[in-house]
Amino acid sequence: MSKFRLAVVQLHVTSVKSENLSRTRTLVKEAAQQGSKLVLLPECFNSPYGTNFFSEYSEKIPGESTRLLSETAKENKVYVVGGSIPEEDGGKFYNSCTVFGPDGEMILKHRKIHLFDIDVPGKIRFQESETLTPGNTLSMFETPFCKVGVGICYDMRFAELAQLYGRKGCHLLVYPGAFNMTTGPAHWELLQRARALDNQVYVATASPARDETASYVAWGHSSVVNPWGEVMTKAGAQETVIYADIDLQYLSDVRQQIPITSQRRHDIYEVSCVKETESS
Amino acid sequence: MSKFRLAVVQLHVTSVKSENLSRTRTLVKEAAQQGSKLVLLPECFNSPYGTNFFSEYSEKIPGESTRLLSETAKENKVYVVGGSIPEEDGGKFYNSCTVFGPDGEMILKHRKIHLFDIDVPGKIRFQESETLTPGNTLSMFETPFCKVGVGICYDMRFAELAQLYGRKGCHLLVYPGAFNMTTGPAHWELLQRARALDNQVYVATASPARDETASYVAWGHSSVVNPWGEVMTKAGAQETVIYADIDLQYLSDVRQQIPITSQRRHDIYEVSCVKETESS
Repeated sequence: MSKFRLAVVQLHVTSVKSENLSRTRTLVKEAAQQGSKLVLLPECFNSPYGTNFFSEYSEKIPGESTRLLSETAKENKVYVVGGSIPEEDGGKFYNSCTVFGPDGEMILKHRKIHLFDIDVPGKIRFQESETLTPGNTLSMFETPFCKVGVGICYDMRFAELAQLYGRKGCHLLVYPGAFNMTTGPAHWELLQRARALDNQVYVATASPARDETASYVAWGHSSVVNPWGEVMTKAGAQETVIYADIDLQYLSDVRQQIPITSQRRHDIYEVSCVKETESS
Repeated sequence: MSKFRLAVVQLHVTSVKSENLSRTRTLVKEAAQQGSKLVLLPECFNSPYGTNFFSEYSEKIPGESTRLLSETAKENKVYVVGGSIPEEDGGKFYNSCTVFGPDGEMILKHRKIHLFDIDVPGKIRFQESETLTPGNTLSMFETPFCKVGVGICYDMRFAELAQLYGRKGCHLLVYPGAFNMTTGPAHWELLQRARALDNQVYVATASPARDETASYVAWGHSSVVNPWGEVMTKAGAQETVIYADIDLQYLSDVRQQIPITSQRRHDIYEVSCVKETESS
């Protein structure tokens, strides 16, 4: 079980939820037919991305979109990392990623820990924290292949989360995300490669396809990066499914070649969880 | 004092120590004449890099090479971050960076914390830990411009060190280093950009110039990266001095635009010093 195929679905997300869901069903099936064992969807795969959309497109969990994910996982016998949806719970809204096993059971829910607040004058202003409530836990799940750590978009900017996932044995980190036309070209690939190299893990990101007519234009370029920090595969801007064969023996080789995981100076510094309440 | 010029000397290091020292004197003077306030030298600026050279070229501190640094700093009224030299102390050898203020006083000594052990089959094997003893402390110094954190080469691979420097108020991180022809193209720039972006600080690296005839061939490409993660200036492979105008107002703007330094979830994770014995 040292190798498995990962698929990343760079979905073209529209304002029609039913279309988003049916495209998802089609593309997860396509990915499974290509031998994928784990399929990653983008942030806000059922809804346009934007604080003004979160309320309208939000759902309870379980709800329409997560039931679709469950069925799709079960039908295709794959792990589905369901990007994210706007979740409503007790009158509050969250940006939430659900993960389903090949039996269709939900095995994880990650609520975005870091809410995306940006203000680059003349370029982009976006304040997720005006609408959403943050999650408060690390989120990991086990598969027969490896342990997987989950973050959503802006979570990727915070190195500590990836470091903790790495220390806790995750060999793959997945980040559904929707960087934009300012932060995308500047930071999207750099952050993925940094997380992969610094922790000697695989990193996969899933963006919505670019829609120039949307109010928030996603950068696209979903990618998979290996533990040497190399981009293994990268989408363009349009809807597509990309594939990467994750090789855990290679990960192990890299850790032997440049032994940073064993040479850390735990006598000098430490990255730690302040609270151990994790969903995993 | 929100702006100052930084110079990085990518010295052509030879096996003749006196030549290395006289070239250093010349190039620090040149850098000062260009208005630089802080001059960064490469790892092992007085000695070829290699475990078999460390003993022969090693010195006590103070000694010939560090006296030269002190004089050069004073003559030119600049801060000199003296790359590193093989230091001998009590029969042990260290890879040590000394820093001198514009009055010629030594204000810091950083002994490389992480010793470089690499084994990429068919490419490169190098085990610093067979010869050297590691340092055990963080190393920061204050200037009228900003606080500066110091690491040497392999130290840069350990994100925690940079994170702690950032948390402790350093706005510039300097890494004298000698990556090689395997790790250089793969990781040198990526690591610098990652440290800069993740901590929203300036990062400067100083490599020896490339010498194809040396037993250990350095990658060169000394660089300065800004807090947005952009390479401001980068040397080629040959001896040169590169310059960057460090703008602390820009750093402050970046931190406001993408407020990761204030949005960290200190209630969930923490990067901390295990021991607070730092040389600063």
